[in-house]
Amino acid sequence: MAVHTHQLSLHMQGDCHIENMTTHIRRLLEQGDLEAGIVTIFVKHTTASVFIIEDEPGLRADTKTVWERFLPADPTWQHNTRNPGEDNGHSHLRGQFQGQSLTIPFVERQLTLGTWQEIVMIDFDTRARQRELIIQIIGE
Amino acid sequence: MAVHTHQLSLHMQGDCHIENMTTHIRRLLEQGDLEAGIVTIFVKHTTASVFIIEDEPGLRADTKTVWERFLPADPTWQHNTRNPGEDNGHSHLRGQFQGQSLTIPFVERQLTLGTWQEIVMIDFDTRARQRELIIQIIGE
Amino acid sequence: MAVHTHQLSLHMQGDCHIENMTTHIRRLLEQGDLEAGIVTIFVKHTTASVFIIEDEPGLRADTKTVWERFLPADPTWQHNTRNPGEDNGHSHLRGQFQGQSLTIPFVERQLTLGTWQEIVMIDFDTRARQRELIIQIIGE
Repeated sequence: MAVHTHQLSLHMQGDCHIENMTTHIRRLLEQGDLEAGIVTIFVKHTTASVFIIEDEPGLRADTKTVWERFLPADPTWQHNTRNPGEDNGHSHLRGQFQGQSLTIPFVERQLTLGTWQEIVMIDFDTRARQRELIIQIIGE
Repeated sequence: MAVHTHQLSLHMQGDCHIENMTTHIRRLLEQGDLEAGIVTIFVKHTTASVFIIEDEPGLRADTKTVWERFLPADPTWQHNTRNPGEDNGHSHLRGQFQGQSLTIPFVERQLTLGTWQEIVMIDFDTRARQRELIIQIIGE
Repeated sequence: MAVHTHQLSLHMQGDCHIENMTTHIRRLLEQGDLEAGIVTIFVKHTTASVFIIEDEPGLRADTKTVWERFLPADPTWQHNTRNPGEDNGHSHLRGQFQGQSLTIPFVERQLTLGTWQEIVMIDFDTRARQRELIIQIIGE
């Protein structure tokens, strides 16, 4: 058993920008020396999340629609009214719901993802930013 | 430390059908040789999820009500309009929110679940399907 | 590699009461003997959750607002109507959405949290209760 910790940095545009990192994670497993275990993907921010999607343009558009309906940008969120200069209360709330941690088993150096499952990051913030993730592999 | 990977196949009816797999997972731990660690339950589909519920008929019914209100079936989801023949845009969106991965610690070969916690799969799709899960146990 | 399992008990007030446990978890890692791995924080209840927040008063208030809008207390939830004496159907549904398990990598005995990320428990129930959590550390 061993623990291997990798970092990944992605340039994100905010406003529900989605970036696919499945290939990157597959390569880490193929190039590593562990046969089976778990990969934990962890986003080091409160206004961005990681999740699984069938990554096609329709669902990317629907995802943005859902977040704008459910948790709209609004100057009256108390995060905005209590903290001068802040406009991203909705970004934080979306990040809390979608979450920052995803754990996926792997076997024979391959993710156990189903045919249509892809791992993506979504950025809920109101401006472009560099985003940092931890990809940690534990296994034998 | 060791990694043991199991597969589970469940026949699901779609439309918020819920299936309880707590007993199945408890047996895997009792019949295994690991004393403490984590169980990761991973659903290999985008339109189904795993979560924890107090599994009684009222909450099963309320869960279906909430999803139908929050993310209703709708022919105008872009997943449906852009992909001829698709009618399950809402199923994908529900799956993204509820998630496909659940990690639970175990000690003395027993899940650390509280008294009322049960592990269930929910199927959000629009037709009956066979569903595949990975149940991976890591521990010592 | 080793598994260390800790318990944490928190007195919670219900009604979206939030308690920060980041410092507690940091201390467990600093006082332990594992350098790198994962921490799994698991809530042993169905009407409380664990998640990551930028922990400032505005977002605590906004979080409560969102849950009250999205899944309001309502005597007509079937959990309440079918189970005499129950009034917390909304608490269960909120707990299902927010979840009871959170996995965070650590490196050099430090959580890999970003600058603004804090780990909190939220209690959705309708009365004050003692709440139990498992904090399990797996690593090398």
